[in-house]
Amino acid sequence: MAFEDPGSPAAVGAAAAAAGLRAVPVPVDEHGIDLRALAATDARAVVVTPAHQWPSGVALAPERRLALIEWAAERDAIIIEDDYDAEFRYDREPVGSLQGLAPDQVISLGTVSKSLAPALRIGWMICPPDLAEPLTEQKHRSDRGTPTLDQLALARLIESGRFDRHLRRMRATYATRRTALLAALAEHAPELPVTGLAAGFHAVAHLPADANEHNLVAAARTRSVGLYGMSTCRTSRAATPPQLVIGFGNVGERAIREGIAAVRDLLADRP
Amino acid sequence: MAFEDPGSPAAVGAAAAAAGLRAVPVPVDEHGIDLRALAATDARAVVVTPAHQWPSGVALAPERRLALIEWAAERDAIIIEDDYDAEFRYDREPVGSLQGLAPDQVISLGTVSKSLAPALRIGWMICPPDLAEPLTEQKHRSDRGTPTLDQLALARLIESGRFDRHLRRMRATYATRRTALLAALAEHAPELPVTGLAAGFHAVAHLPADANEHNLVAAARTRSVGLYGMSTCRTSRAATPPQLVIGFGNVGERAIREGIAAVRDLLADRP
Repeated sequence: MAFEDPGSPAAVGAAAAAAGLRAVPVPVDEHGIDLRALAATDARAVVVTPAHQWPSGVALAPERRLALIEWAAERDAIIIEDDYDAEFRYDREPVGSLQGLAPDQVISLGTVSKSLAPALRIGWMICPPDLAEPLTEQKHRSDRGTPTLDQLALARLIESGRFDRHLRRMRATYATRRTALLAALAEHAPELPVTGLAAGFHAVAHLPADANEHNLVAAARTRSVGLYGMSTCRTSRAATPPQLVIGFGNVGERAIREGIAAVRDLLADRP
Repeated sequence: MAFEDPGSPAAVGAAAAAAGLRAVPVPVDEHGIDLRALAATDARAVVVTPAHQWPSGVALAPERRLALIEWAAERDAIIIEDDYDAEFRYDREPVGSLQGLAPDQVISLGTVSKSLAPALRIGWMICPPDLAEPLTEQKHRSDRGTPTLDQLALARLIESGRFDRHLRRMRATYATRRTALLAALAEHAPELPVTGLAAGFHAVAHLPADANEHNLVAAARTRSVGLYGMSTCRTSRAATPPQLVIGFGNVGERAIREGIAAVRDLLADRP
């Protein structure tokens, strides 16, 4: 089972191991997963985040979307499309899912973890028709079903239109925080390129080549500023450009400004 | 992994298979699981329902409780105690758990599926201290945790004393249904011995030797009377005495009376 690198090596690795599979990292560049590297593996499944790659934030380029589907068709492989933040796109309409392009090849995963709360533990799969029954059985064997009241409450929220209203309101809230982040970066650290901001709740800041990602994250923590280094999302700790993964989903505008000012100070202080 | 026969062969078998284990049935008699038969297996774990055996309804005899713990200690085995209906005992205080007797040998499973609703999907484990961390990790890997709101709501229900009040009220409700079942059986089918009624929400009716359990259940279904044959809880379909597992937990008193009257008619009609 191939997966994106950087990505979620721990989660995918554990899931693969539990299923008796080997997890194989495949590099991601600015256009998404590297299809030549994928083709060089013997993977029969791949986990991807095409709409907004986690954590780099890039979108899978249109020609790669088609090539990925071709790869799956030729190899009789399954694409697992983790559409984890599909509801929150700032520049245009949400990117269409791969599942819509290749319904027999793609399992698309959705969740309310980002749109409502991870505490709800509710998600869904859109899958090839012949997988619906075995996946349902597997789910039943694993937990005998997701709590019913929570599912009914969510159904009511969706049917009543309040879920859509909530999404619209939260899109505006997150857009404001995103703007605050961009403004703070422009003010305090204009020299840092920032990418991955087209959707979701995180951005990638590209640090100066001599910055030490790990030390910066640790120093920020002592100031109560939570940062994540990109290297924690990579399978290899080989020398990679230092980058920060900056989340703004659950942070107010003032905290965003203060956090970025702290990053500026810490970068200025480096030896 | 040994399990009780009759019991839940499908559920235990699937769980064992998912863990790469072999599930081995061990017979149950009127004092609970047969320890000589258990000792003859090479099991290193056993799943038991000592307080109110599912589905026979017998309690594990006190001397067997001790012998079971001895078996586990000698073999360095784990006892998984499924305490599925512990809260509902009619004749005396709830039977103490095996876990209390042998905290290093026993994993005790509790649930609100019977006391509140299966839809909540909330349960708990009381386990040997050295298993707490690996089991927590395994649970996290499998589902990243049970929905938080549901857990907080249950905690509030318990802390407020309302859960205890609910149990007291439901104990009285189930006791009334149990009495209705006994009265209906005494009126309509006094020749059928009934066992397993000390706790929980089901009883076992021992049919005449010439009754056909399967046909009776099927015929009752055509009259909208839901009965379960004991043979569906057994691993072997070898000739066993015909028995009915009669649930009364979610059935009103009138439906209980009508159901037992239907059983009487069907038994009278048999060739």
